[in-house]
Amino acid sequence: MARRIGIKDVAAAAGVSKATVSHVLNRVEGKRISQETQQRIWRVAEELGYTPNSLAQALATQRSQTIGFVSDEIATTPHAGRMILGAQEAAAAAGLVLLLVNTSGDAELERTSIEMLLQRQVDGVLYAAMYHRIVVLPEALRSTPTVLLDARCDDMAVPFVVPDEVQGGYTAVRELIAHGHRRIGVTVQTRDLPAREGRLEGYRRALAEAGIAYDPSLVAAETAVPFDTVGGDVDSGYRAARRLLTAEPRPTALFCYTDRMAAGAYRAAAELGLSIPHDLSVVGFDNQELVAEALYPQLTTVQLPHYEMGAQAVAQLLALTGTSGSPPGPVAQEMLHCPLVARASVTSPPRL
Amino acid sequence: MARRIGIKDVAAAAGVSKATVSHVLNRVEGKRISQETQQRIWRVAEELGYTPNSLAQALATQRSQTIGFVSDEIATTPHAGRMILGAQEAAAAAGLVLLLVNTSGDAELERTSIEMLLQRQVDGVLYAAMYHRIVVLPEALRSTPTVLLDARCDDMAVPFVVPDEVQGGYTAVRELIAHGHRRIGVTVQTRDLPAREGRLEGYRRALAEAGIAYDPSLVAAETAVPFDTVGGDVDSGYRAARRLLTAEPRPTALFCYTDRMAAGAYRAAAELGLSIPHDLSVVGFDNQELVAEALYPQLTTVQLPHYEMGAQAVAQLLALTGTSGSPPGPVAQEMLHCPLVARASVTSPPRL
Repeated sequence: MARRIGIKDVAAAAGVSKATVSHVLNRVEGKRISQETQQRIWRVAEELGYTPNSLAQALATQRSQTIGFVSDEIATTPHAGRMILGAQEAAAAAGLVLLLVNTSGDAELERTSIEMLLQRQVDGVLYAAMYHRIVVLPEALRSTPTVLLDARCDDMAVPFVVPDEVQGGYTAVRELIAHGHRRIGVTVQTRDLPAREGRLEGYRRALAEAGIAYDPSLVAAETAVPFDTVGGDVDSGYRAARRLLTAEPRPTALFCYTDRMAAGAYRAAAELGLSIPHDLSVVGFDNQELVAEALYPQLTTVQLPHYEMGAQAVAQLLALTGTSGSPPGPVAQEMLHCPLVARASVTSPPRL
Repeated sequence: MARRIGIKDVAAAAGVSKATVSHVLNRVEGKRISQETQQRIWRVAEELGYTPNSLAQALATQRSQTIGFVSDEIATTPHAGRMILGAQEAAAAAGLVLLLVNTSGDAELERTSIEMLLQRQVDGVLYAAMYHRIVVLPEALRSTPTVLLDARCDDMAVPFVVPDEVQGGYTAVRELIAHGHRRIGVTVQTRDLPAREGRLEGYRRALAEAGIAYDPSLVAAETAVPFDTVGGDVDSGYRAARRLLTAEPRPTALFCYTDRMAAGAYRAAAELGLSIPHDLSVVGFDNQELVAEALYPQLTTVQLPHYEMGAQAVAQLLALTGTSGSPPGPVAQEMLHCPLVARASVTSPPRL
């Protein structure tokens, strides 16, 4: 590595003492240094490519201008990337950078990763899950400003940002009802998660509002095997949809718990000779563009606001640490809106 | 934030001087401190939860134990996540963490991001593109140990890690030839990229090896509009495939430049009443699982080794900086193998 240009180099080139350079570049008040000398020092510093030593600055202030981002998983979907991007752009706007660590769900790796972050004196930590989960806050974070991202914990003093699953489910089913559907099936995973509870609750609310009775035989739950993989999700979606579509009378529309489960519903429909959307309307959830736009016809779905969640979590962290300029505010617990993304998989029900 | 436990606190609790604590915890040689005192200090430090101040250590050694990861795009596909994960796990194994910045392709943001990294005295930088590209190395990185990830530049002194596009294209087409196909179409983007040149070269090599004449009318190039989006790619793949499949005699198999273009080919085949794989075999490229596993039948494709590229780039950076323990080695320029991922979209050609 090329040697770093230091204050000593600037001092030598400008023909002044190191102290003088330090006073000028650090804008120390109350020193009598001529305007001309100050300008010469700034010019020389720029010419030599001097960059201030932020480690020394951080050591002096005990602030690193760095936010830790602890995620359990970054490599399966673009979701993580969007959350990171949202967080990173919000952090950059405040002059902060993200120090990213990924734990792959390994408790020991998580412990050492968080230790590394605290050793680097991060100003705060975003503790992110890659799907909406109830987590146990690591002990080491209890004394560090922390915001949960796409996660909640049992300590109500910890701020969080999550998607509004109930509103999202409601929005998906509202779209089907608005097109005239009344017999609407749901495909879900069996695993107990906030997304499952919330989206099913939204389904029931939309039905109730439209005066449609809830029929538990229209809710098909299947276990993903292998668990938590793309293939497992698609396959469980296939099995659940196939079960609903071979019952009589069959639903005219399906609300699928994830876009990947919707991909499985497309497969079931193709096998049964049902054309989407003319014989069957389908709404997904997540807005995974790689799935939603690869399906034919393209999938109408509900968006998980990952970018916005990342950005909002940084805003909360800045408020928590007082870095935003305003004094630390109250703990915020936010549920962000999940908008409908209408594509081509919903139309009016067939006349049966 | 809870106050950080410092050497002062350990000294007070252990009943010794700060200097003694510092000597023990920093394992300074040549100081006469009794075994018993040393053990007491370590025990007290552990009980209080003391963590060494890595900023101070970095300042003393001018090493931050941090690698910068500059990426142009992290939010569109899981590719970025896999590269980051590969880099991060390799870095963690060497006791380093990644400091991630994302430039969204913005030159000014890139300049300030790199400046931020250099101010934090990263030991080196991974400069990553999210698809294989020829890049211009930013001026500020010319004096910093840097490895290009999924990218190359005109300066042959800069090490890089990229996928072996020619071998990947060859592998895809070999798979079709092995199933008996001789009339094999290719769908590609019009944009001049290393992936395009390499994969087409691999196609020609596989044909030549099997004694099949190259027929330019079987190569359909289309421009993605909107550019660089999921939808644009799927749509251009649809148009290119439709053109090839409506010509006479039509190909019995397609090699598609990306999995998203292959999704477009599925749509074209469905419209034309062609069943995959019985009427038409299809091989993609990338192994984007969200696409490949959502399609029905699931897509046979070639994997871009993103995880391995990230890990290998870190290994190169460690060799470059001598951090791996061995002295800095020669510059490495690596092309990693792209393996076939066989699913369900390839079978023998129909008897026409």
